[in-house]
Amino acid sequence: MKGFGVLEKGKVGWLEKPDYVCGAEDVICRPLAIAPCSSDVHSAMEMEGDYLKNRILGHESIGEIVEVGSMVRDFKVGDRVVIPCTTPTWKHPDIQDGTHQDAGGMFTAINFSSYEDGTFANQIKVRSADMNLALLPDSVSVEQACMIVDMMTTGFYGAELAEVKFGDTVVVFGIGPVGLMSVAGAKLRGAAKIIAIGTRPDCVALAKEYGATNIISYKDGDVIEQIMAITGGKGADACIVAGGGVEALNNAVAVARCGYGTIGMLDVITGEANMTINNLYIGGFLSHKTIKGGLCPGGRKRMERLLAMVEAGRVDPSKLITHRFEGLDSIEEAFELMVNKPRDLIKPIVLFQY
Amino acid sequence: MKGFGVLEKGKVGWLEKPDYVCGAEDVICRPLAIAPCSSDVHSAMEMEGDYLKNRILGHESIGEIVEVGSMVRDFKVGDRVVIPCTTPTWKHPDIQDGTHQDAGGMFTAINFSSYEDGTFANQIKVRSADMNLALLPDSVSVEQACMIVDMMTTGFYGAELAEVKFGDTVVVFGIGPVGLMSVAGAKLRGAAKIIAIGTRPDCVALAKEYGATNIISYKDGDVIEQIMAITGGKGADACIVAGGGVEALNNAVAVARCGYGTIGMLDVITGEANMTINNLYIGGFLSHKTIKGGLCPGGRKRMERLLAMVEAGRVDPSKLITHRFEGLDSIEEAFELMVNKPRDLIKPIVLFQY
Amino acid sequence: MKGFGVLEKGKVGWLEKPDYVCGAEDVICRPLAIAPCSSDVHSAMEMEGDYLKNRILGHESIGEIVEVGSMVRDFKVGDRVVIPCTTPTWKHPDIQDGTHQDAGGMFTAINFSSYEDGTFANQIKVRSADMNLALLPDSVSVEQACMIVDMMTTGFYGAELAEVKFGDTVVVFGIGPVGLMSVAGAKLRGAAKIIAIGTRPDCVALAKEYGATNIISYKDGDVIEQIMAITGGKGADACIVAGGGVEALNNAVAVARCGYGTIGMLDVITGEANMTINNLYIGGFLSHKTIKGGLCPGGRKRMERLLAMVEAGRVDPSKLITHRFEGLDSIEEAFELMVNKPRDLIKPIVLFQY
Amino acid sequence: MKGFGVLEKGKVGWLEKPDYVCGAEDVICRPLAIAPCSSDVHSAMEMEGDYLKNRILGHESIGEIVEVGSMVRDFKVGDRVVIPCTTPTWKHPDIQDGTHQDAGGMFTAINFSSYEDGTFANQIKVRSADMNLALLPDSVSVEQACMIVDMMTTGFYGAELAEVKFGDTVVVFGIGPVGLMSVAGAKLRGAAKIIAIGTRPDCVALAKEYGATNIISYKDGDVIEQIMAITGGKGADACIVAGGGVEALNNAVAVARCGYGTIGMLDVITGEANMTINNLYIGGFLSHKTIKGGLCPGGRKRMERLLAMVEAGRVDPSKLITHRFEGLDSIEEAFELMVNKPRDLIKPIVLFQY
Repeated sequence: MKGFGVLEKGKVGWLEKPDYVCGAEDVICRPLAIAPCSSDVHSAMEMEGDYLKNRILGHESIGEIVEVGSMVRDFKVGDRVVIPCTTPTWKHPDIQDGTHQDAGGMFTAINFSSYEDGTFANQIKVRSADMNLALLPDSVSVEQACMIVDMMTTGFYGAELAEVKFGDTVVVFGIGPVGLMSVAGAKLRGAAKIIAIGTRPDCVALAKEYGATNIISYKDGDVIEQIMAITGGKGADACIVAGGGVEALNNAVAVARCGYGTIGMLDVITGEANMTINNLYIGGFLSHKTIKGGLCPGGRKRMERLLAMVEAGRVDPSKLITHRFEGLDSIEEAFELMVNKPRDLIKPIVLFQY
Repeated sequence: MKGFGVLEKGKVGWLEKPDYVCGAEDVICRPLAIAPCSSDVHSAMEMEGDYLKNRILGHESIGEIVEVGSMVRDFKVGDRVVIPCTTPTWKHPDIQDGTHQDAGGMFTAINFSSYEDGTFANQIKVRSADMNLALLPDSVSVEQACMIVDMMTTGFYGAELAEVKFGDTVVVFGIGPVGLMSVAGAKLRGAAKIIAIGTRPDCVALAKEYGATNIISYKDGDVIEQIMAITGGKGADACIVAGGGVEALNNAVAVARCGYGTIGMLDVITGEANMTINNLYIGGFLSHKTIKGGLCPGGRKRMERLLAMVEAGRVDPSKLITHRFEGLDSIEEAFELMVNKPRDLIKPIVLFQY
Repeated sequence: MKGFGVLEKGKVGWLEKPDYVCGAEDVICRPLAIAPCSSDVHSAMEMEGDYLKNRILGHESIGEIVEVGSMVRDFKVGDRVVIPCTTPTWKHPDIQDGTHQDAGGMFTAINFSSYEDGTFANQIKVRSADMNLALLPDSVSVEQACMIVDMMTTGFYGAELAEVKFGDTVVVFGIGPVGLMSVAGAKLRGAAKIIAIGTRPDCVALAKEYGATNIISYKDGDVIEQIMAITGGKGADACIVAGGGVEALNNAVAVARCGYGTIGMLDVITGEANMTINNLYIGGFLSHKTIKGGLCPGGRKRMERLLAMVEAGRVDPSKLITHRFEGLDSIEEAFELMVNKPRDLIKPIVLFQY
Repeated sequence: MKGFGVLEKGKVGWLEKPDYVCGAEDVICRPLAIAPCSSDVHSAMEMEGDYLKNRILGHESIGEIVEVGSMVRDFKVGDRVVIPCTTPTWKHPDIQDGTHQDAGGMFTAINFSSYEDGTFANQIKVRSADMNLALLPDSVSVEQACMIVDMMTTGFYGAELAEVKFGDTVVVFGIGPVGLMSVAGAKLRGAAKIIAIGTRPDCVALAKEYGATNIISYKDGDVIEQIMAITGGKGADACIVAGGGVEALNNAVAVARCGYGTIGMLDVITGEANMTINNLYIGGFLSHKTIKGGLCPGGRKRMERLLAMVEAGRVDPSKLITHRFEGLDSIEEAFELMVNKPRDLIKPIVLFQY
């Protein structure tokens, strides 16, 4: 098997590894689509730890099953399947109490490229297949589905974490692909006004298409003041932080309404030992503003739910895709795009023909 | 003051009454729009009790303030205001614990035409004005707003009661004006597949426009079987009963999924001392299927939230209006329409020019 | 292997069966304690269906592991373990969305004596051992633990379903062993006044010890009137129905407060095709009174949580035990007790010495 | 009227003011009990702002009504009443959406000594009397009731914010009077193990009496390590921060379980422009650990609920009282106690005889 991954910290390239052995509850897939993500860049370029050495990158993919474990009930060779980026074992008792994302410890469900090899390869192994995979319906394209497995589930989770309700004024900080999906998700949780913060023209246009009613740019002055002006001084019922780090988080806290304002935190803060929260706006956490964050939900049911939304025409996540490539070798180029982030990039995808 | 109401059980007509005296926290409005509702017909024709005698009917209206109480802070004469059909006093301690709709007893917030005269008059008195009224924004039409005060808040409440989540399969029983708003509300809470049950062509067309993906008719066979066929035998994640009474409620229970299926009950069951629930599908309530019902939320914030949704273009409730009238006298004709329910009727409205 | 079970409908006796084969994720135990339950009597005497023929009864037990499957990580031979009466496989995707009790269909988690042989035997097989078993701590007695596996988890679930909050007035209908645990559970969810309905002197005394502040008897007049008198006409914030069937359920609905009153339904309604709900008190489900029911939660974490409460001295469920027996053969006599229900019976137990 | 308050920043003393004029919805009381609180000391000694100059201090009190406004329905002269420290007007539309504590802005419900004169006076004015007061039942002592109005409602709120569930391991940081009430509240929300952190012998003894199973002292080494040792490395399901400021908050975050651990934040952070949150344990808020904070709930229903718990014998908050005084003049001495905090102080009270 061949894959694209981390040779050593800061250096990516091609890896040759033995073929996967298919466990009793696993399936092996060949890729139909893969997509690089900012966190792949982050893992490759910034993260410390020998555990990433010689690790195949990637966690977004759609696959076709080529081998199926003896205990797998619901899938067979040839099935085209949606592979969530979050694939817990579902075998830790913690799932009986808390989020599956963290069963057994923080972020344990982020298996691909963290604990095992990722999806940028000619073979993809999925553990606990019956619990993690969803069948790709005919009416959903491979491109659409590939934007579900991380971008849509994460962005929509922002709207869930922020507890968006009918008529809410929602602010979305950052309109990269995740933030754009948060805009769409906020609309589909009942938001009224959606204020999106960003500057890239393609992202701004897509934010409007997905439901943003107002666009704010950091370049036009203080973000807090702009939001307060748009909301008549009332601030936001809900905020989603999909970019901008701790500064955006503090802006979100500043504009969230006292008494119930909720901030859905999606942005990955890395390389910071501490976060500094401005006390002025949160009153030592006594203002009833709540920050709720988390990694995206995965698993089979989540995928089936989001697929059903795409099938019903509620949202088309494939609009995120700005750059298309063909074949495994092109992941190298697609990955470079994510490193360099040209101004017209929202999301690249690599497609496979057999 | 002059109004249209109940002369005695089963007989409606015109009433002359003394002008309202404006209390300290009240406002008096002249109507900009009023609309009759099935429950007006019900009150007039079916309900027992002397308390309805000589009672002016109506609870849906948009008004223009002509007099304002001494303690009202946020409204002034000339303001065009949205008047919710549910207008609690907000002065009962029960609002600190439970729904405002029932503070102090069942349905106490349904003031218009139940405890005081209703909106089918040349004067409309609104109690606790600061807590109940919302200013009509320029960007929302009187027609749109008048469909918010009961139809949209009730229909959307169905989606809230049924706890619609991303990707849910939702069944809406009944697609009169409330059911149609439930379809729209379910879509805006993240429903994927929405199965609407009804037969009138205009309602069916509007249901599709509001987001229904499947239409079922009672005429085409057993409703439960049809739903099970559409859902691949899985049933519905959420149901909203907006018509069809106890039979529809039992069908909803039958198709709701074990383990979490929730039924939002909106339909008013009248003249029935008992409801019979089929034990086969609910397992004596031990199947984790839950029926949640309630009268629609009112008050200022609710109106402001729904207005903001209309302003943001999320939904246009004025599409419900099929019949338009002009002037107070025409409420008689509009009311007759609600009594006779011609096949092309969804919702009538009476507009006022001054 | 030898067990006590259903020979045919209405007839119980001893069964000889082949020894269990231990699956990879299973364990085989020998019993340290077993206890008969009303639902064992119900299964044996009233339920139709060939599937119960030659089925070993019983779902309450504490065991000692004698054999352990190859994939079991957390348990070993000799461990003394708490075996919940609800043992899902935890392998159905439905657990990702809904209650584990109903994953894959209504009541599917009630494995013992419904889908496989029960616990009244010299061998007990537990599926998905790592996910279902809890280790018995030294500080918790076998008697206490055996009262956790069904009685305490069910009774406490009533307090959870009824959403008991600080200062609630709670009514518990029925003070058999489950209802008594509901009294204790309501107290430990913050109930203030707890009104328990029952007549047997031993149960009444124990209800008071567990936290009941008021005792009502059906013999002293109309239950609704008695509750209304005690609550100054206000009714109950929460109700738990642990006995009394549909009549008790209707009484609960009658006394639950409009606007938020919640009824936790635990009682098993059998042999009734329909339930009749009195519309007077529930207003066609529009009064914001909610009935929430369900089978008791099981699984490892639930057992660990309840064990921790007993360890911390919050409650002693072994006070339920009124009759003690020794050895497998005595289950016959213990079962007879449950059939005849003498007035001084709360709960029998059969203990084992090796 | 005469009261004890802030003369200027850092200087307290006696103030003479005109008698209150009783508004239509107000009552005027004479005190039956008052109690000083750490936040009185904080207001007097540390807070900036001319608005506190010549402000009578105090927000804890029990009163007897001496005058009643014309619109007050439920109270009359001579009634002995429980006066919550949080007394919103209940007339801001924000209560329809969010917490009453913050309706109209952060902390707006904290009226006494923040926006109007406080309770350390021979007259106490209570606004919105019907919505804020509770009648003192004969079976609850003045001492018990006076410990409800702030200490118990705040401490118990910690258990609510932290979402304590059956069987939780709960850590309470700080066992002053609020933390002690959090211990009692956690027990009455179903906590199993309760680990309390503190050193004063009287507080430690009372913590155990209220339900703490383990006591930790900062003096015995790293708090995180001690908690991890007690919990077998698993950490806490819920934490309540009732003292210790940002350091305690970070310790709480450190020991809270990934996936669902919730921290109820009660401690007032003052004089700090920023809070620093250690990213190691919270993973940039992505670990599904949530900090929920807020000022205590007030209003009539809350008081009635807590009074009902005391009446039912669920908890005796008067055990907090270590020092008793008599008559208004002695508030000066009681206040000094709060400033100096002798080692045997938990809570002082000033009682009144007429």
